[in-house]
Amino acid sequence: MIIDLRSDTVTKPTAGMKEAMFSAPVGDDVFGEDPTVNALEEKAAKLFGMEAALYCPSGTMTNQIAIRLHTRIQTEVICHKYSHVYLYEGGGIMSNSLSSVKLLEGNLGKMTADQVKAAINPDDVHAPETTLVSLENTMNKGGGSIYTLDEVKPIKEVCKANGLKLHLDGARLFNALAESGESPANWGAQFDTISICLSKGLGCPVGSLLLGSKADIKRARKVRKVWGGGMRQAGFLAAAGIYALDHHTQRLTEDHARARALGEMLLKLSFVSEVFPVATNIVIARLDRVSPEDFMKKLADQNVKAVKFGPDLVRFVTHLDFGDDQLEEFGKRLISIK
Amino acid sequence: MIIDLRSDTVTKPTAGMKEAMFSAPVGDDVFGEDPTVNALEEKAAKLFGMEAALYCPSGTMTNQIAIRLHTRIQTEVICHKYSHVYLYEGGGIMSNSLSSVKLLEGNLGKMTADQVKAAINPDDVHAPETTLVSLENTMNKGGGSIYTLDEVKPIKEVCKANGLKLHLDGARLFNALAESGESPANWGAQFDTISICLSKGLGCPVGSLLLGSKADIKRARKVRKVWGGGMRQAGFLAAAGIYALDHHTQRLTEDHARARALGEMLLKLSFVSEVFPVATNIVIARLDRVSPEDFMKKLADQNVKAVKFGPDLVRFVTHLDFGDDQLEEFGKRLISIK
Amino acid sequence: MIIDLRSDTVTKPTAGMKEAMFSAPVGDDVFGEDPTVNALEEKAAKLFGMEAALYCPSGTMTNQIAIRLHTRIQTEVICHKYSHVYLYEGGGIMSNSLSSVKLLEGNLGKMTADQVKAAINPDDVHAPETTLVSLENTMNKGGGSIYTLDEVKPIKEVCKANGLKLHLDGARLFNALAESGESPANWGAQFDTISICLSKGLGCPVGSLLLGSKADIKRARKVRKVWGGGMRQAGFLAAAGIYALDHHTQRLTEDHARARALGEMLLKLSFVSEVFPVATNIVIARLDRVSPEDFMKKLADQNVKAVKFGPDLVRFVTHLDFGDDQLEEFGKRLISIK
Amino acid sequence: MIIDLRSDTVTKPTAGMKEAMFSAPVGDDVFGEDPTVNALEEKAAKLFGMEAALYCPSGTMTNQIAIRLHTRIQTEVICHKYSHVYLYEGGGIMSNSLSSVKLLEGNLGKMTADQVKAAINPDDVHAPETTLVSLENTMNKGGGSIYTLDEVKPIKEVCKANGLKLHLDGARLFNALAESGESPANWGAQFDTISICLSKGLGCPVGSLLLGSKADIKRARKVRKVWGGGMRQAGFLAAAGIYALDHHTQRLTEDHARARALGEMLLKLSFVSEVFPVATNIVIARLDRVSPEDFMKKLADQNVKAVKFGPDLVRFVTHLDFGDDQLEEFGKRLISIK
Repeated sequence: MIIDLRSDTVTKPTAGMKEAMFSAPVGDDVFGEDPTVNALEEKAAKLFGMEAALYCPSGTMTNQIAIRLHTRIQTEVICHKYSHVYLYEGGGIMSNSLSSVKLLEGNLGKMTADQVKAAINPDDVHAPETTLVSLENTMNKGGGSIYTLDEVKPIKEVCKANGLKLHLDGARLFNALAESGESPANWGAQFDTISICLSKGLGCPVGSLLLGSKADIKRARKVRKVWGGGMRQAGFLAAAGIYALDHHTQRLTEDHARARALGEMLLKLSFVSEVFPVATNIVIARLDRVSPEDFMKKLADQNVKAVKFGPDLVRFVTHLDFGDDQLEEFGKRLISIK
Repeated sequence: MIIDLRSDTVTKPTAGMKEAMFSAPVGDDVFGEDPTVNALEEKAAKLFGMEAALYCPSGTMTNQIAIRLHTRIQTEVICHKYSHVYLYEGGGIMSNSLSSVKLLEGNLGKMTADQVKAAINPDDVHAPETTLVSLENTMNKGGGSIYTLDEVKPIKEVCKANGLKLHLDGARLFNALAESGESPANWGAQFDTISICLSKGLGCPVGSLLLGSKADIKRARKVRKVWGGGMRQAGFLAAAGIYALDHHTQRLTEDHARARALGEMLLKLSFVSEVFPVATNIVIARLDRVSPEDFMKKLADQNVKAVKFGPDLVRFVTHLDFGDDQLEEFGKRLISIK
Repeated sequence: MIIDLRSDTVTKPTAGMKEAMFSAPVGDDVFGEDPTVNALEEKAAKLFGMEAALYCPSGTMTNQIAIRLHTRIQTEVICHKYSHVYLYEGGGIMSNSLSSVKLLEGNLGKMTADQVKAAINPDDVHAPETTLVSLENTMNKGGGSIYTLDEVKPIKEVCKANGLKLHLDGARLFNALAESGESPANWGAQFDTISICLSKGLGCPVGSLLLGSKADIKRARKVRKVWGGGMRQAGFLAAAGIYALDHHTQRLTEDHARARALGEMLLKLSFVSEVFPVATNIVIARLDRVSPEDFMKKLADQNVKAVKFGPDLVRFVTHLDFGDDQLEEFGKRLISIK
Repeated sequence: MIIDLRSDTVTKPTAGMKEAMFSAPVGDDVFGEDPTVNALEEKAAKLFGMEAALYCPSGTMTNQIAIRLHTRIQTEVICHKYSHVYLYEGGGIMSNSLSSVKLLEGNLGKMTADQVKAAINPDDVHAPETTLVSLENTMNKGGGSIYTLDEVKPIKEVCKANGLKLHLDGARLFNALAESGESPANWGAQFDTISICLSKGLGCPVGSLLLGSKADIKRARKVRKVWGGGMRQAGFLAAAGIYALDHHTQRLTEDHARARALGEMLLKLSFVSEVFPVATNIVIARLDRVSPEDFMKKLADQNVKAVKFGPDLVRFVTHLDFGDDQLEEFGKRLISIK
């Protein structure tokens, strides 16, 4: 049996989710007539207390659409230098929205309101105009670290005071909410747009949602169209999303508990010098004397998969298909690794 | 019962197709590990004798990726003024690829090699460099008109002689092939890239394929990523595509026969002055003394749906869910319209 | 002696203009401190009753900046298919502003308010949003044809009613005004931005001005910067512009008179089938049985230069360096051509 | 008398330069017929042993054109986080070339070959393809620091080994060459393109040159056109460039000597904690207990101008109009500041 901890995207739908998918009523979503897509969009918007939502094939699309909405040619986005929107979306801020980036540093991938304030460009012909701040919660490259509402609110204040939009890449927002117990609606109140992913911790095969105002979501449909993200009878996929929102958000804390246990196991390896604080379902181990490639080969020999996450880092992600049995088995296999 | 002739995109999967979808093995396609997606890509590439294929959420995405591949900033695309890539893809040639358009005219939406040759820009600092010719087969705005291979070959010669790439928007290419009996491989040999759609005549819920060289498809994956078109367990959808290629390509001639019959019915209406030659599954009627809006209202009163297709044009499209019974019923309802 | 009628851009500064240039006080315009540039911008803005102006290296830059100001990614510009902004600016609408074009036809390069109205895209996800109409006066490819204020006003009304911006490419606007006697201020009142060129009929070596609101010109400075159009001690060039506005606008009617005379001379050639109506300083001759290349070679043998302007068209432009003596001499040389 | 040390761009042409400008033969450069522009382009290309050159209105334009030449949509540029192309050109890498940036750190604004090598993106669908490395010499934000040829050569080797282009922003390259005694041709041999500025230390009113291969410069003309950088009778300006190359390159060491003296004077101020090593004509002072704004106000009271260059930094630049008399006077005025 392979234990695949490369990402929480690798899960396959449960029997219940598949049943929901293939019994879903569908229609042509380009005509706005897929009842299941419509129901998912309404459900998600309502959950976060936002006006509207748009179903898209991926979180990269929802993030990139949001960035397009909140920028113009020759503007600038403030984000962490480790953020997914800068590092892992193909350079889309630049190539999709013709906007520049101001890259901030900060502990565990997080930025502060003071940093954001200092990073706003002056009104000067040499500098692109700052129009957007983009946060990520949980923060993947920060080891699944969590922003609290109390950390976000002062950033929102800076945005308001300076006419900036605030976007949340919430690819793993449900992990943060499950852990903190904060309500989605309180988060919806802080952001102009939120991207949430259904195919990571929530276990759907495909899909993300962009949440925002009616006006923004209307414009978002145009951007989705020009990139080819409009799908026809997408209800089969959307049904999985509805099922996941109903059944898979509370169980995320189980993934977190297993991630903490997994982190402790890793720390026992002689060549693991550090494990980032495990806040949710991501575990990043720093290696000493052994390269990520070598460690991953040792893991592969034990039928365990993980990913290199830096010159001396390896990442493990727990998920729906990684239960207590797998955790125990993982521990056994780790013992064989020296 | 509603008779929906707005587009061949409105069909819902058959029982056999749903069964194929439900039982498909899946994996994470972003890691290249969805076996069903891989199988569909290989099957389609082989069918057209091309090196590789890429599965995407829509035909707009496959077309727009192809245009990105064959252009650079400040180049120009030659296409018919009625082509889908110019008219119905949100202005993507310009906003996705920063390229200009040279719009040609021509009977039933088709262009000739001589026209293409004359439209190539000179080597002059004032003009963008022409790099791409884009054809569409069948031609939607031309009433489903067909390019024959003999018409395409001289255009290909012009492209070769002038260093231009040649792309085919084959959203309804299978309709053309079913009607002409030409082989997919002979078509694959003429083009640098071909986009084929699974969700129109072939009856799939979602998806299109881009066909091309290995090198082009590798680059295409990067473009798909930056627009957010990469999906995770997309095999559920891809399975429908495999099923459609196996079962739904030959039956398209039935749609064409019904379209011809439908065209003759329409001609009997006093206010229909002309029906475009019915070559495949699209029927365009020109109206006299009655507006498209008024005609569509009359149709709606009879539970029939069609779309306005110009100031005095209405379009009907036959498809998998429109059988002989529906055709007969359509005829009956039409009689009630004056 | 060469008689150069290729364009009104070929003129060299008069003695008076050179004197003005080299006695001009200058400063660093990037710091906003070149007094001569500032004086020129104020003078031009005041002349047209507009709030502000920006001095740029060329008319292509002023037009392209205006288009950037009035569009966003994925919008559309309505212009004549023969307009300079589409044909001769390197595809900049698309590559600089990521916007699409709706190309209208119309007699002598002019469009009507009804055409413009019909060309506005519907509020539909498939179509880019129309945001700008761009006119050109005089119309180069229309044979120097003139828009009158009475023709412009209904177009402005359509723009207002539909929330569109209206830009004027006034590369040869002073020719139109000199001929019609209309006041610059009345023209300024109709447009959101106007581009005027100093280096054509006005005889300056370099430069154009963009006129508009204070807010638009502020944004224009940012666009000028990112394309590298900001110049340091540009006052030497700007001084020529001030001189030209003072001394060279009224004399343009002389160029027009000579153009009419030149047009009549051309009509006497056996192989000239038609001369476009000569409204200002541009003369376009249609050839019969002789190619533009052959005619230009005959002209070159007589030391006369003109430009090919289409498959059977040759263009001549009169200007500051083409006086009565040159006209007479041109007539003599033409007689030698059979 | 104002002592203006804000930048070396503020100088006005000398009598000799103005004489050269005034007597220059000119023509229409858009037709390639300005003899003085052509002579300047040839002279500069020859000096650096490169094939061709293009005269442009500014160094921002020559840099931005080079970046366009060496990138495609969705590629990435490696440069120092303090580089002019990233910080002071309006975000042009992103908005003009749709490319991303990898921002490196390094002492005095310089990067090493090892850093560059580590910054090249892997062949992965999530990351834009690295295609270009851009250096700056002298490095403005590094206090006018100099790259030596020995530092550049290993970077060039990394570029060659990885198929990357190498561009040099040589806005103040002549300062580096004057100080190091290295030959322009040896520098030309290391780079694909070099941008040199005529309006900084060389004292011209306007203009920069892009140097490169014939093929690249041909493409550069198209980019210059679409941004509106083509000028007509630009020979008046180009003449100043020829004069400067003949008369103003050797004298730059005088500016450097005065900069060193000026740096020592600044160090005596109680609130100046540090002066960056003065390598050429730029002096950056770090302040302690006094803000840049307050220091600049004190300077302004003494009719001295400088610019804020960071939260606690002020920059002074020596130039052609700052001779020994001004230096002495500057010293006197500084004594009055407490």
